[in-house]
Amino acid sequence: MNDKVKLSGRPVISSTGMFAPPDLITNDELVASFNRWVDRYNAENAAAIAAGEMEPKQHSSAEFIEKASGIRQRHVLSGESLLDIDVMAPRWRERADDELSITAEMSLNAARQALAKIGRDPAEIDAVIYSNSSPERQYPAVAIEVQQALGIDGFAFDMNVGCSSTTFAVLTAADYVRAGHARSVLVVTPEIPSAHINWQDRDSHFIFGDFAVAVLVEDAAIAPPSHWEIIGSKMKTVFSNNIRNNFGIINRGSPDGAGAGDKMFVQQGRKVFKEVVPMVSALIVEECGKLGIEPSSLRRIWLHQANSGMNRLIAQRIFGHEASADESPTVLDRFGNTAAAGSIIAFTEHSDDLQPGDTCLICSFGAGYSVGAVFIRKVG
Amino acid sequence: MNDKVKLSGRPVISSTGMFAPPDLITNDELVASFNRWVDRYNAENAAAIAAGEMEPKQHSSAEFIEKASGIRQRHVLSGESLLDIDVMAPRWRERADDELSITAEMSLNAARQALAKIGRDPAEIDAVIYSNSSPERQYPAVAIEVQQALGIDGFAFDMNVGCSSTTFAVLTAADYVRAGHARSVLVVTPEIPSAHINWQDRDSHFIFGDFAVAVLVEDAAIAPPSHWEIIGSKMKTVFSNNIRNNFGIINRGSPDGAGAGDKMFVQQGRKVFKEVVPMVSALIVEECGKLGIEPSSLRRIWLHQANSGMNRLIAQRIFGHEASADESPTVLDRFGNTAAAGSIIAFTEHSDDLQPGDTCLICSFGAGYSVGAVFIRKVG
Repeated sequence: MNDKVKLSGRPVISSTGMFAPPDLITNDELVASFNRWVDRYNAENAAAIAAGEMEPKQHSSAEFIEKASGIRQRHVLSGESLLDIDVMAPRWRERADDELSITAEMSLNAARQALAKIGRDPAEIDAVIYSNSSPERQYPAVAIEVQQALGIDGFAFDMNVGCSSTTFAVLTAADYVRAGHARSVLVVTPEIPSAHINWQDRDSHFIFGDFAVAVLVEDAAIAPPSHWEIIGSKMKTVFSNNIRNNFGIINRGSPDGAGAGDKMFVQQGRKVFKEVVPMVSALIVEECGKLGIEPSSLRRIWLHQANSGMNRLIAQRIFGHEASADESPTVLDRFGNTAAAGSIIAFTEHSDDLQPGDTCLICSFGAGYSVGAVFIRKVG
Repeated sequence: MNDKVKLSGRPVISSTGMFAPPDLITNDELVASFNRWVDRYNAENAAAIAAGEMEPKQHSSAEFIEKASGIRQRHVLSGESLLDIDVMAPRWRERADDELSITAEMSLNAARQALAKIGRDPAEIDAVIYSNSSPERQYPAVAIEVQQALGIDGFAFDMNVGCSSTTFAVLTAADYVRAGHARSVLVVTPEIPSAHINWQDRDSHFIFGDFAVAVLVEDAAIAPPSHWEIIGSKMKTVFSNNIRNNFGIINRGSPDGAGAGDKMFVQQGRKVFKEVVPMVSALIVEECGKLGIEPSSLRRIWLHQANSGMNRLIAQRIFGHEASADESPTVLDRFGNTAAAGSIIAFTEHSDDLQPGDTCLICSFGAGYSVGAVFIRKVG
């Protein structure tokens, strides 16, 4: 790229990339393992259960999981250990400091795909934002490790706002572009929710999948002719404890705390459903109004991929009718809830057919609560 | 504030606030406790030490600490447990989910001071960035909890880039203001490095102090007449493992890993010194050049407060002579290394005497490596 190119200050999404870990667990496999563990648990505690001193654990079923969530399978970093009823937790080799970190590697896999699609030279990128709900360590920021691995000269940092981590990072990158502080910003979101959940909990063990996405946010002046102009945006947060994970370095001060050793994902699923659906729908309709866009005229929306029931309701409120798969595509069935990566997976897999002038929406929502809405229009 | 006020798109720092936890540990107190522990350790292992199978631990001294770092005392969240040779670690009560989190409370103490100084109504603030090297949990973002506690309508998220967390957040906030996406952004940095370090390690147990700072970054149009215009900035990162802390949720996958249960701050102090001093000095001189500022004409610089020797060398390279306390004030002696909070403490304590037109610099550096330079000019 010619350093002398006159920048426009108009941010666009010019490319995205994805990485799915090779291990795949279907609902049938997950349930078979879970039910074996339930049977063993109930057998080992048969006397106490018979005496009414303990509750027996209940079997699960692939049908229950699909009906509750829309999920049929998920990719994970360590499938074997998750299905091993003597482990039922992630297991990977701890890497030395001079090796590439696990989430940096996931990020690079997604980032290289995004760069290759448009032939972007890392020398043209000025910043890296590593934004996810699974930050790998305290410091140095993993973003800087990704920056170094790609040979990017500039700045990098980590950020976290649960499942809106990617959209908030994209919109932050867009403001760096608007301010002239970056020509091109690489956003990477490696998610490892398999490390967050209790794989012995019937109500949540099936929810998540590991995944990484990358997004290039660039000044229109350097982007390839075919890109997505960011025409509107909204970041919104309203505090809630209904999706929470207390794991953190603060726990060092309370080694005997009530939840010691068990700081994992917890969710009040019904409350989330009831509170988030109207919040997201109203925000989208309101922002459409500000942009002069009739909500039903949106060509396609890529919603956060957490629950098919939520997405059906939100899409219905936007379009005024039951949305088709063409209007509101899902990838939940194949990848599960991939935290902040979900809406970008849906966008990446279901956007090549769109035409110049098509106005669309990427919208995340989740823990926080947070909502990140990115209105985009196809160019070129 | 009148919503109709015409915004300028020019970001300024309009106020800062601070919170020091009440517990204070002097070098003498720290050394007395440490040496008692050393004596007990050596007595308990006397036979093995005599047989040459173990190395005896060495006493420390207040003089050694002050000479090595410039630190005389530090504030901490839990002084008693750190000095108790049966604990030598932080201890606090684990808070329930419906209580205010520890770092949210620290943030609020600093934020309320910053707001009160200029009479800022939280209703006029549009965003909160919680940026530190001690993120408290995975989700929801603590920023959103701070946002709610203050009654701020808008968006909030967490970010982390080690000791440059505050300057990077200030510069990110500045770009939200430039883009017209926020009128006023509250940056909060609660640091609890007491939870990061091994209080039995002679070479590092004295380094850190707990602290919180808050910074208001606002559009000049709504700022009070007396404020600091942001006239230039630079964020820079270059990967290094020389300051590292591997604590994170990724550790769940390696419970038997080499460092399991001991993921703490580690530092190659001499390498950091040798590599960071030239990196920071060169960056400041180069950015001064771009801004047309003679480095020696900077009225005052507030450097990251990690080590008095580093700051002496950096300041000397900028000013061309040994800098006075007036040119490069230190707060290291009273607060220790407060991670990302340090340069803002120095700014807050040593800026009231400056005059309109004075051109100054806030500059952080540390883990990453990262450097965040914020050039500011006094107005009003």
